[in-house]
Amino acid sequence: MSKENNKPRLKIIPLGGVELIGMNMTAIEYDDSIIVIDCGLAFPEDDMLGVDMVIPDITYLLENEDRVKGIFITHGHEDHIGAIPYVLRELQVPIYATRLTMGIIERKLEEHGMMTKVRRKVVKYGQSINQGPFRVEFIKTNHSIADAAALAIYTPAGTLVHTGDFKVDYTPVFGDAIDLQRFAELGRKGVLALMCDSTNAERPGFTQSESTVGVIFDDIFAEHKDTRIIIATFASNVDRVQQIINTAYKYGRKVVVEGRSMVNIINTATELGYLNIPENTLIPTDQLKNYPDERTVLITTGSQGESMAALSRMANGMHKKIAIKPNDTIIFSSHPIPGNEKDVSRIINELYRKGANVIFQDVHVSGHACAEEIKLIYSLVKPKYSVPVHGEYKHLKAQERIARSLGYDTDHIKILSSGDVLEFNGKGVAKVSGKVHTGSVMVDGLGVGDVGSIVLRDRQHLAEDGIIIVVMAMEASSGAVVSGPDIVSRGFVYVRGAEDLMDSAHSVVADTVASLEDSGIRDWSKIKTEIKSTLSDFVWKETQRRPMILPIIQEV
Amino acid sequence: MSKENNKPRLKIIPLGGVELIGMNMTAIEYDDSIIVIDCGLAFPEDDMLGVDMVIPDITYLLENEDRVKGIFITHGHEDHIGAIPYVLRELQVPIYATRLTMGIIERKLEEHGMMTKVRRKVVKYGQSINQGPFRVEFIKTNHSIADAAALAIYTPAGTLVHTGDFKVDYTPVFGDAIDLQRFAELGRKGVLALMCDSTNAERPGFTQSESTVGVIFDDIFAEHKDTRIIIATFASNVDRVQQIINTAYKYGRKVVVEGRSMVNIINTATELGYLNIPENTLIPTDQLKNYPDERTVLITTGSQGESMAALSRMANGMHKKIAIKPNDTIIFSSHPIPGNEKDVSRIINELYRKGANVIFQDVHVSGHACAEEIKLIYSLVKPKYSVPVHGEYKHLKAQERIARSLGYDTDHIKILSSGDVLEFNGKGVAKVSGKVHTGSVMVDGLGVGDVGSIVLRDRQHLAEDGIIIVVMAMEASSGAVVSGPDIVSRGFVYVRGAEDLMDSAHSVVADTVASLEDSGIRDWSKIKTEIKSTLSDFVWKETQRRPMILPIIQEV
Repeated sequence: MSKENNKPRLKIIPLGGVELIGMNMTAIEYDDSIIVIDCGLAFPEDDMLGVDMVIPDITYLLENEDRVKGIFITHGHEDHIGAIPYVLRELQVPIYATRLTMGIIERKLEEHGMMTKVRRKVVKYGQSINQGPFRVEFIKTNHSIADAAALAIYTPAGTLVHTGDFKVDYTPVFGDAIDLQRFAELGRKGVLALMCDSTNAERPGFTQSESTVGVIFDDIFAEHKDTRIIIATFASNVDRVQQIINTAYKYGRKVVVEGRSMVNIINTATELGYLNIPENTLIPTDQLKNYPDERTVLITTGSQGESMAALSRMANGMHKKIAIKPNDTIIFSSHPIPGNEKDVSRIINELYRKGANVIFQDVHVSGHACAEEIKLIYSLVKPKYSVPVHGEYKHLKAQERIARSLGYDTDHIKILSSGDVLEFNGKGVAKVSGKVHTGSVMVDGLGVGDVGSIVLRDRQHLAEDGIIIVVMAMEASSGAVVSGPDIVSRGFVYVRGAEDLMDSAHSVVADTVASLEDSGIRDWSKIKTEIKSTLSDFVWKETQRRPMILPIIQEV
Repeated sequence: MSKENNKPRLKIIPLGGVELIGMNMTAIEYDDSIIVIDCGLAFPEDDMLGVDMVIPDITYLLENEDRVKGIFITHGHEDHIGAIPYVLRELQVPIYATRLTMGIIERKLEEHGMMTKVRRKVVKYGQSINQGPFRVEFIKTNHSIADAAALAIYTPAGTLVHTGDFKVDYTPVFGDAIDLQRFAELGRKGVLALMCDSTNAERPGFTQSESTVGVIFDDIFAEHKDTRIIIATFASNVDRVQQIINTAYKYGRKVVVEGRSMVNIINTATELGYLNIPENTLIPTDQLKNYPDERTVLITTGSQGESMAALSRMANGMHKKIAIKPNDTIIFSSHPIPGNEKDVSRIINELYRKGANVIFQDVHVSGHACAEEIKLIYSLVKPKYSVPVHGEYKHLKAQERIARSLGYDTDHIKILSSGDVLEFNGKGVAKVSGKVHTGSVMVDGLGVGDVGSIVLRDRQHLAEDGIIIVVMAMEASSGAVVSGPDIVSRGFVYVRGAEDLMDSAHSVVADTVASLEDSGIRDWSKIKTEIKSTLSDFVWKETQRRPMILPIIQEV
């Protein structure tokens, strides 16, 4: 073996975030040290019935627990921080993040009673953290939440750049524009690999500046001077909230904030100085009645049509304090996230029905870089390798096409799956050298991981056609049926409207049991199997449905 | 009472189609006669678990059975014809439709074994049907399925115009452009009310001609001469299929058709002369292997990401005859229908993973009129009243805005809900005068209407957190528990991984039962209630889940 082969190797291992939008988590490994970038959740897929959220399986990190040095968070969105309370319960490592990001993380830790258990360090832009062989520098970027950072990861094997979620905003609402000069400097010195946000890679052109939305608010407020204005947007978009407050102030309107997550983030952002609210502008909901409609603005959650959010409750007349009135002007300052289109439409229809005027187009800009911005970052950083991150496979492929248009060949573009180990050899040549265990852990209520494929399959089965339960009591010694068989169903048919069907089903089961009894069959599993198959056939023939059939035998 | 009040009145009563996209059905009533326009289904909403389709509740028509003269169908899409087999089982009336539309209806009737039972009449454009006081004329329009018609309904009280689903296509692929002259003539003579398609009323401008898609196919085929081409589109879009076949023929490729609904519609359309397939162009799937990839085109179902459609099965490696290969060029000639976005994305990701090249933008045009086309129709027809149809509430409101921009005041724009009776008095003044019973009937397997709100609520409950069943046997005379309580669960937790929890749950139930027994309580319903509430509290405390809890007591 050559000396070359014994040198420690730099590895990039995505533990999530590259097969879906969500669950962002990437391990960077060198020698006996591992650092982790982001620790996010994913929202459950449609077939994950009853599941609240999905978090990455961190078996690999737990197996290498003493090597893990820390978790570096790029920004405060749930798909980057949502798994922290679950992961940090099992893995005692410090967290590094910028100030607002840490503020949001701390709220989460408080809710889970974990504030004293987790080591935390707030990092400034330009500041670096040394951990083992790594130095990690936080770089200013722009995104739909303030304080987003890219990371430069200096290693003995070369420098990696991770953009986090970003856009290029030359005229941001708060703070500075993305630090393009720093990206350029890094590029000039040489970057081994760029892990770049793929979310909007399919979209041509440039994402508009956040400040353009302020101009639109101004126009809308000018046009609707005589009505109440209600604006739904993402709770975490502090700059958006700032622009609403600015416009409200300009037009002499008081501002009410509705929705728990919105209130939380505004409190955190205000405390930390990321939000400037002029005095006497914010009023509590209770005081709304003291002002005429045209002097008020409501900022609310529910822009994605979430059924329990404040806007939905207002639209459905279920909100305790606020009801939609005819002539209310309601603005969706958002786009529906894929999968939420119908829920959003449902609310819009309901608002129109209440007589409100709804504005839901063009009052939003994305927080993610489009194709031209991605090209800009590549042109500044000029990485040797392109490693697209943050997206479904089609988004990663779109970034691949961008990289190819910039002259990268397929050998220098690495599209990774969860668990793929991208290893750089001593000469800085990258190759997928193996795979570590990864996966998704479903969280349902307090249960973390106790809902798996079997439980989900049962829920899907129950959801589709309901359940028929057959109970009977057998005497232990004789095997005689002393009670039942009785049939109970839920979610199958409306029993009172289907008495004939249920009577026939009962006869089918009773006949089966009687004939088994006559044949002297006393093996319970055989009896259950027979009941299942006979009843299932009968039900299919009569209804073309396949309810779950569950025979229960009691021994007396 | 004045004479005026005794004259029969013209009524428009939507039985569906005005609160959602789907379930289109409208009754037109005059004196002792009713005619019905369209008879469509709706696809189930997300919360209608296990439901296959939804059809309109026709109680009102059944109550007035002898007055119903016939059903007039505007075109062959499911949301206009899908309920026919169910409705015609209960209501024996003739169906009127254009030729292709009737061909598609007949396939449906054949499947339901109803061909001999249903009277049918094929109507040509320009032809009229007399039914009681009504004369109904079929007028040529354009849509995403051939043979679409608008209806002019002449009544003693005035003329109604129903556009059906339409667009204005000056350069259609098959047949003539929409008969704008006829709309103008009708308008010149005076139209009482226009019922106009609202689907795209929110979109500004004009919908592009279907023939523009042919040009795009040509470009794509020219650019991908070296690969197999697979095109997914809507089965019923015969003109789209024609254009694919034309382009395939031009480029010397053989065509294979995949997916049952696609094969059916192509057969029907070919038999009836709506599709021209050059000889030796269509080949069976089995012969695909005899041709090099670059000499073949597949037309397939599955453009909406439907999990059982041919394209999904190819993408997932579950298709018996066709597997996706690297370098296949796959074209989605479609837009995702709202609600299907994630399913479509899932397939696109899977296709990319298989190494295919996927084209999914800008290879489709809509079949519905945008704002400028709607204005055109209003300007030709110049109805006294605007009655927006075919849309969710927000779409109807968008048509209202269009009508207002053309000078209609709110008194002359009538947005109706299902069941609203829009009545025209002797002077032709319209007013909503009452409401008839309407509703949605859910179809699940062979069951029509046996799944109602209780069954659905149970399915939703089961889907969310599963079920815990508590069984016990009690002696009839003494009330002594002779077996159990036993606990069985499904869809709650993975039992083998949660033995402690299940053991504790068992103890909780056993303790409850024992203490009830001690207290001499023998009322079953009381025992069940007690078990339910104790176990439910315990489970919520331990897991923050609310499974359905079902106590079953057997008498021995």
